[in-house]
Amino acid sequence: MDRTPVDPPLRPEALRFDERGLVPVVTQDAHTAQVLMLAYANREAVAKTLETGEAHYYSRSRGELWRKGATSGHVQRVVEVRVDCDADALLYRVVQTGAACHTGARSCFYRALTARAEPGIGEMMATLEDVVAARLAELPEGSYVTKLHARGLGYVAQKVVEEAGESVVAALTEARGELAGEAADLLFHLTVLLHESGSSLHDVAAVLAARHGAPHKGQG
Amino acid sequence: MDRTPVDPPLRPEALRFDERGLVPVVTQDAHTAQVLMLAYANREAVAKTLETGEAHYYSRSRGELWRKGATSGHVQRVVEVRVDCDADALLYRVVQTGAACHTGARSCFYRALTARAEPGIGEMMATLEDVVAARLAELPEGSYVTKLHARGLGYVAQKVVEEAGESVVAALTEARGELAGEAADLLFHLTVLLHESGSSLHDVAAVLAARHGAPHKGQG
Repeated sequence: MDRTPVDPPLRPEALRFDERGLVPVVTQDAHTAQVLMLAYANREAVAKTLETGEAHYYSRSRGELWRKGATSGHVQRVVEVRVDCDADALLYRVVQTGAACHTGARSCFYRALTARAEPGIGEMMATLEDVVAARLAELPEGSYVTKLHARGLGYVAQKVVEEAGESVVAALTEARGELAGEAADLLFHLTVLLHESGSSLHDVAAVLAARHGAPHKGQG
Repeated sequence: MDRTPVDPPLRPEALRFDERGLVPVVTQDAHTAQVLMLAYANREAVAKTLETGEAHYYSRSRGELWRKGATSGHVQRVVEVRVDCDADALLYRVVQTGAACHTGARSCFYRALTARAEPGIGEMMATLEDVVAARLAELPEGSYVTKLHARGLGYVAQKVVEEAGESVVAALTEARGELAGEAADLLFHLTVLLHESGSSLHDVAAVLAARHGAPHKGQG
């Protein structure tokens, strides 16, 4: 069982700020789903965020409203603000310019108390999308994406069909152990095909969301 | 530029608890990357989490250590604990049994202050993986996955090659607007092929991580 999202959206007046007038804010990359940082917002910061579409927080150390990226240029465009069940925590889903962390790291959570765990398919597909988009924008010499681009759309299309063929051969024969690798090749070349055709995995995500339901609605 | 993760892991003694002896904890689904909840931990909760591999928190309302799922059965197996740059916030990456929220919602963040944003490709691929795995486990009558399963691996393989073909035809002709839809079909059937062959998108994620780098290492 799952709750359907409230529609129309919850009103900001319903938020429950703590005795300092703050709520914690989890900030998540809207594309990669990576958790970028944890910060705090007061009522004014929430209002400014909703009004401008740019992430605002309250700096506890400086005691002031803080527009993320005001000095660094590393702004966060907010695509959605979610609220938790108790209305005392927020989730900003953002498109991050540059790095979220003052250290230069993409995410503030770059260290661990435990051994590293494998990333999930979600993180890796988002990474694939970002890597292919960046390579096609920059076309760095020696990069495989640059080579694919130089050979043209027909060649990329040929590779997609070829990798699909290799995937099914692996699935149907004694080479099953190679299937994950062939499927990874297929996903990679499909991502390049999408970009070379003016599309992207984001468009595919929109199609999948329409068909299978968005995961935050609970059908996942 | 990005920071390389600290290896060996950061020591729990380095954590900076607030004046109440707490740190906020963001809990994220390790497979789907969905943010599930925000809670707090004291030093004992962190120690218990690291020791048992099950998420422990500190309940501010009850004033006690709290093993998630102790009464509901909705336990969280912790695969990784990350720390932020200031060492005053934690990120638990977990495998969630059932629902994280006491309301029965998968995530506590089921409401929004804004219009809903589209989910990213990361969330949708994780959803696809979960949906296909659930359908193949339950084989509900009338489900398309059930039909594919009944027709057998050869038919699923044929569909993968067919959808790859339709994707490249869309990319190479005036039908470019159909490419995202064909690519979605391809991803769906590829996911079924993987599962029917004893593999999954998680195995593909491991291959992609080995090739392109895990996103938390910053290469994303």
